[in-house]
Amino acid sequence: MTQQRNGPKRIALLGSTGSIGTQTLDVVRAFPDRFQIVGLASGRPSDAFAAQAAEFQPVYTSLRDAPDRRFDGARNVTLVEMATAPDVDLVVVATPGGAGIAPTVEALAAGKPVALANKEALVAAGALATAAARASGAPILPVDSEHSAIWQCLHEAESCVPPCGQPAGVDRLILTASGGAFRDRTMDELREVSANDALQHPTWTMGPKVTIDSATLMNKGLELIEAHWLFGVPFDKLAVVIHRQSIIHSLVEFVDGSVKAQLGMPDMRTPIQYALLFPERAANARLPKLDLGEIGNLHFANPQPGRYPCMDLAIEAGKRGHAYPAVLGGADEAAVDLFLQGAIRFPDIAALVAAALDDFSPAGELELNTILEADHWAREFVYQKARLLEV
Amino acid sequence: MTQQRNGPKRIALLGSTGSIGTQTLDVVRAFPDRFQIVGLASGRPSDAFAAQAAEFQPVYTSLRDAPDRRFDGARNVTLVEMATAPDVDLVVVATPGGAGIAPTVEALAAGKPVALANKEALVAAGALATAAARASGAPILPVDSEHSAIWQCLHEAESCVPPCGQPAGVDRLILTASGGAFRDRTMDELREVSANDALQHPTWTMGPKVTIDSATLMNKGLELIEAHWLFGVPFDKLAVVIHRQSIIHSLVEFVDGSVKAQLGMPDMRTPIQYALLFPERAANARLPKLDLGEIGNLHFANPQPGRYPCMDLAIEAGKRGHAYPAVLGGADEAAVDLFLQGAIRFPDIAALVAAALDDFSPAGELELNTILEADHWAREFVYQKARLLEV
Repeated sequence: MTQQRNGPKRIALLGSTGSIGTQTLDVVRAFPDRFQIVGLASGRPSDAFAAQAAEFQPVYTSLRDAPDRRFDGARNVTLVEMATAPDVDLVVVATPGGAGIAPTVEALAAGKPVALANKEALVAAGALATAAARASGAPILPVDSEHSAIWQCLHEAESCVPPCGQPAGVDRLILTASGGAFRDRTMDELREVSANDALQHPTWTMGPKVTIDSATLMNKGLELIEAHWLFGVPFDKLAVVIHRQSIIHSLVEFVDGSVKAQLGMPDMRTPIQYALLFPERAANARLPKLDLGEIGNLHFANPQPGRYPCMDLAIEAGKRGHAYPAVLGGADEAAVDLFLQGAIRFPDIAALVAAALDDFSPAGELELNTILEADHWAREFVYQKARLLEV
Repeated sequence: MTQQRNGPKRIALLGSTGSIGTQTLDVVRAFPDRFQIVGLASGRPSDAFAAQAAEFQPVYTSLRDAPDRRFDGARNVTLVEMATAPDVDLVVVATPGGAGIAPTVEALAAGKPVALANKEALVAAGALATAAARASGAPILPVDSEHSAIWQCLHEAESCVPPCGQPAGVDRLILTASGGAFRDRTMDELREVSANDALQHPTWTMGPKVTIDSATLMNKGLELIEAHWLFGVPFDKLAVVIHRQSIIHSLVEFVDGSVKAQLGMPDMRTPIQYALLFPERAANARLPKLDLGEIGNLHFANPQPGRYPCMDLAIEAGKRGHAYPAVLGGADEAAVDLFLQGAIRFPDIAALVAAALDDFSPAGELELNTILEADHWAREFVYQKARLLEV
């Protein structure tokens, strides 16, 4: 693990122009003595990225679509080079999709703590990422509000530092789910909903892919797989409760029936700051305060069985292990893409993912290549299957 | 502090026939290998006490109203003797009223961990009790659901063991309050309510004194004073939110805006077991499980300023320190007694307590005697003042 040193924590931020990236920079700005941005990476060149580079003067930059674009004084590197550079103390992986997997695993293998906002690194490559973390002793600091909540609630006799085995005294982890844009529709109505209907999520502002994953609860299914890897809890001890307001971010149920919850206004900067400063906490006037009395009511509902087939498929894929979660992720990405294009109906997303999981035959040792190939296979499978259906 | 030893934890239970006492024995029954009852104490002789003595075969018994009543094989002792006996590993103080103060302070001074359900020991004698605990290293393990909730939520990098200084990163402690039997009455209506109206508290089953204290929120005021002593937090960092369902038992707000809460079905055996087993947790099939989805809604409201003068008086007494909280407690006990007798109106409770606090002049070092004298003075003051009002 990277040596503790005096001076600010040197951060490589992968995915700096996305929602988590810009909010990470907002937290960094609030603590100029505590943090220094030494690396910035994004997919496409943009004015926003150029402005970030000018403001933070990083040592390293990386642009996937313009690898030769130069920024004043910075060196162009790959994501993996940035994530493993010797003068990096902490890597924030906010890169979306499969591109986040290799930098996460390599950073952990190099002993770098990773503040993780990328889902795929744990969903598809959880076994590899956690093995790398355990071997080097580097923690995986979850940035998702749900996993941050669980992490905060697990501290008992000592801090829980993920990845960890199921902590003593813990019975179940209960993730809250907004229920998505279609939670009030009947199953019949779901056949007719459009992408546009979905793209107004109640509480968090998210990209279109995440918005659809929220409506299918695939998102929650992926988070269950992440929770399994982060906290060492088997799938039959993971549960979901619908809580549309997203004030309670998740809960931990202990064997004695006691339940701990972490709450707060929905603002991703709170879990980001927690991951960056852990094990400390610091005041930050930019962060909103919760006033339960003003909110008045918190609503909860248990998910109806059968209503969220995507979540059930995620649990099934997680239990099967090997590259099944990669197949799940790839198939879902393709199916959601087709739904957003208007090519398939909402219930077809689950049907296509199910078909991909059915058709997949795992082979060989699980390694980075196997995972990327399974993901690729699943996408192809779904696009082809959808074309057949159209005919 | 008493040496750790193998074998069951030897427990002296003071107040064994009350609500907390009988529920403590229910927890003890669930863990016959972990706990042994070596002392039982109660106020009045009763069939219930005799049955407890027959079942648990204690080494020591103590009956305030029948100090010579003998039980098979047990030795008659005073409360302080029982609380400090060498073969006692943990003292549960569930004795109501001022009688709990001396055994608590003496047990702590002797290095015995105290699972504390008695309010007066911290309200009136918080400075003495916490000083004794700090000197010997014995913890004060809170049994109140609110303080247990805060205690469970405070664990971060390490366990919090009360009495403690304000833990790093903590901003405010927020106690939940049911709001009591009269929370929906107007201030005018409160002038006309009777003791009978009050004696149907919504969630917890309690004695008449606590029920009235719940309706005035004096109870919550006393708990704020206790929280101040247990967790080292100043009064301006203590807050109350009305939550009639008593599912969230209390909350901790951190400096970064993150909030942790402890939840559970209202059942005192959960915090009792937590105090007895700390730092462990153990499954107990007798304890109820929480199902938020089934509950559906949690309600919250901020207390209206001025609506709960008794709570405001408690905070004021807590801030003034010295024997003022003892005066508060004594005056309240007398005033509630008068209200239960039908001798005064509901708003007179606060008026009489306020008058006692106004009239009190603290003198001398704060010690056990000063405290008991202040309590006694306040009761006399209130009874006399009420008689004058009647004329």
